[in-house]
Amino acid sequence: MITVAVDAGGADLGPREVAAGAARAAEKGIGVLLFGPAAEIGPVHDLVEVIDAPVSIAKAPDPAFAVRTSPEASIVQAARAVADGRAQALVSGGSTGSALAAALFNLRRDRGIYRPALALPLPIPGSSPVLLLDVGANVTCRPEHMIQFAHMGSAFAQAVLGLQAPRVALLSNGEEPGKGTPELVSVHEQLAGAAGRGLNFIGNIEGTQLPEGAADVVVMDGFTGNITLKLAEGISSRTLRAIREAAMSSWRGRLGGLLLSGPVRKLREQIDPEDQGGAYMLGLRQLGVVAHGRFSSRGFARAIEVAAHGVQEDLIGRTRAALVEAGALRPPRGHAEGEDGRDDGEGTRPDAEDGRSDGEAPSEPTATVSNR
Amino acid sequence: MITVAVDAGGADLGPREVAAGAARAAEKGIGVLLFGPAAEIGPVHDLVEVIDAPVSIAKAPDPAFAVRTSPEASIVQAARAVADGRAQALVSGGSTGSALAAALFNLRRDRGIYRPALALPLPIPGSSPVLLLDVGANVTCRPEHMIQFAHMGSAFAQAVLGLQAPRVALLSNGEEPGKGTPELVSVHEQLAGAAGRGLNFIGNIEGTQLPEGAADVVVMDGFTGNITLKLAEGISSRTLRAIREAAMSSWRGRLGGLLLSGPVRKLREQIDPEDQGGAYMLGLRQLGVVAHGRFSSRGFARAIEVAAHGVQEDLIGRTRAALVEAGALRPPRGHAEGEDGRDDGEGTRPDAEDGRSDGEAPSEPTATVSNR
Repeated sequence: MITVAVDAGGADLGPREVAAGAARAAEKGIGVLLFGPAAEIGPVHDLVEVIDAPVSIAKAPDPAFAVRTSPEASIVQAARAVADGRAQALVSGGSTGSALAAALFNLRRDRGIYRPALALPLPIPGSSPVLLLDVGANVTCRPEHMIQFAHMGSAFAQAVLGLQAPRVALLSNGEEPGKGTPELVSVHEQLAGAAGRGLNFIGNIEGTQLPEGAADVVVMDGFTGNITLKLAEGISSRTLRAIREAAMSSWRGRLGGLLLSGPVRKLREQIDPEDQGGAYMLGLRQLGVVAHGRFSSRGFARAIEVAAHGVQEDLIGRTRAALVEAGALRPPRGHAEGEDGRDDGEGTRPDAEDGRSDGEAPSEPTATVSNR
Repeated sequence: MITVAVDAGGADLGPREVAAGAARAAEKGIGVLLFGPAAEIGPVHDLVEVIDAPVSIAKAPDPAFAVRTSPEASIVQAARAVADGRAQALVSGGSTGSALAAALFNLRRDRGIYRPALALPLPIPGSSPVLLLDVGANVTCRPEHMIQFAHMGSAFAQAVLGLQAPRVALLSNGEEPGKGTPELVSVHEQLAGAAGRGLNFIGNIEGTQLPEGAADVVVMDGFTGNITLKLAEGISSRTLRAIREAAMSSWRGRLGGLLLSGPVRKLREQIDPEDQGGAYMLGLRQLGVVAHGRFSSRGFARAIEVAAHGVQEDLIGRTRAALVEAGALRPPRGHAEGEDGRDDGEGTRPDAEDGRSDGEAPSEPTATVSNR
């Protein structure tokens, strides 16, 4: 049986909503270690073990600091349970920042990974979801980071979405290989060459092509990913609302809207973010899923299910194998650095790193890095 | 009477479609100098003077090079007509790249402007359009560029969109001032201080807020702008299509769709890019409008009308006044440079400049820069 460690802190609807989600997942045979205020949660399900952890750091202004100084916090305890082998995957219902920080400090980056990424299957109205990464773990990214994201995303699409040879693209301001930021142009060049081994790399796609299913996995830096994700959500819901408003302006329209309410409801369900379970933390030694704080029990249940599914399909092992095959892992210390001789600095300049990573993706403590 | 110089080359539907647009604008009392293949165009309207210019460089792979080496090209002649004072604004129906290059070489950057920007009123379903800039003139931007964009956009929204105190925001991955790329964080800090004088700066907005009318003017670098614009277009049309497909799946739905066809058509018209006339080139000594190559005569007529309207409202003068008031103009040569002492290098390193500007926004010839 697969066991998932779940943080019940930070959910907008409270820990009981997360517990209800855990119960739904447990009914499907998934074991859950649920970290949260036991008194508030009460008994849940035979397969759900509640561990009392009343301290939540989901709203902490500096998540990295909060994680370091609050070992008793629910998200930290949940991450530690995964690191210790008591569970095989982590699900957080709190903030992305504290989940990322807790995961980095406890689950730790996988060997040879520069930066973990947040991957999210973006629901597309009337079509299959498109996996976007990074959607916010790293505000700025170097080419070698995005090359790893491409492989992580492809491995994920194979293991979790069940695609044979997922089409991997870069989001850019034109299809030509020379379009985009200097970083993107470099990523394009490298993925079209040896660094793209084992990848079905199809080049650049533009914003208009993303909702048209032009690619299965779309790679971008975390800033662009955050904008893309939120804009897509905002525009599709604004459009649906505009249609409803337009329909309400006449009796003909109201009748039409009534007749269409079934299909429109189906469409709304299809693009409901809860259906995807949240964003996946990739590049760590174990799998983590960040559910959205506003999810209901349904979304939390999905998050636990997809996390268990990722474990079952050995997502971590397959991602590592893909990166090894492509030669895309970071060279071990002492070996030659990248073409420009820059040191990535992970672990050695935690403050600078924090600054570059939006303060949400702190580096691991120096001590652990030197062991690699 | 205001005269607009129009390039008829590069339109997907051919020069006659542009000519038909020119005729529509002429009917509203706007003079047009129409540059294109005279034999193909034929007579148009009393207020439209056709100047034979059969060479089009709209599809040239290197627009800056094509502009430099093809003085006879329709877009170059049209830009020269504005520079010479024969017309007061430029409208291009060709590619953005050649229009920007021709405008930079001929209309030239306005005094103290680092980079021209492309501004576009993005139609929002069921709401007022939101002015985005830059939507693609500069792939990468420094903070001082975006600070100027903020003022240019605000002046535009006042002069052309008729807003009293347009709300100006930065598009970022969070509302907090510290969110975003290092460049955005710096822009936020400066606009919240002295550099924001005269501006109704409301801070950062996220992607979800953009379609909700949270701001009137949204500032971003040209890469993010291109993605935002195309993604918004792609998502809204995908959503409308998904509803139609859902409606067609049952007789109830088909009837509902029929009853709703009026309001949905109105919504489609409202988000039709032709209605906005295209993207505005801001930061030049005269106004330029880049219509989309796929526009029909309606869109070209709108482009000419909005260009004439911008002249009437003294958009250029008002933009300059706003930049002067905020102290956001580039210091003249010989004066102190920005805080980091970097020289912007305009005019002195044309190749490096080309590379940073996606090859679409070349610097002016060195000779003209030294005159400032």
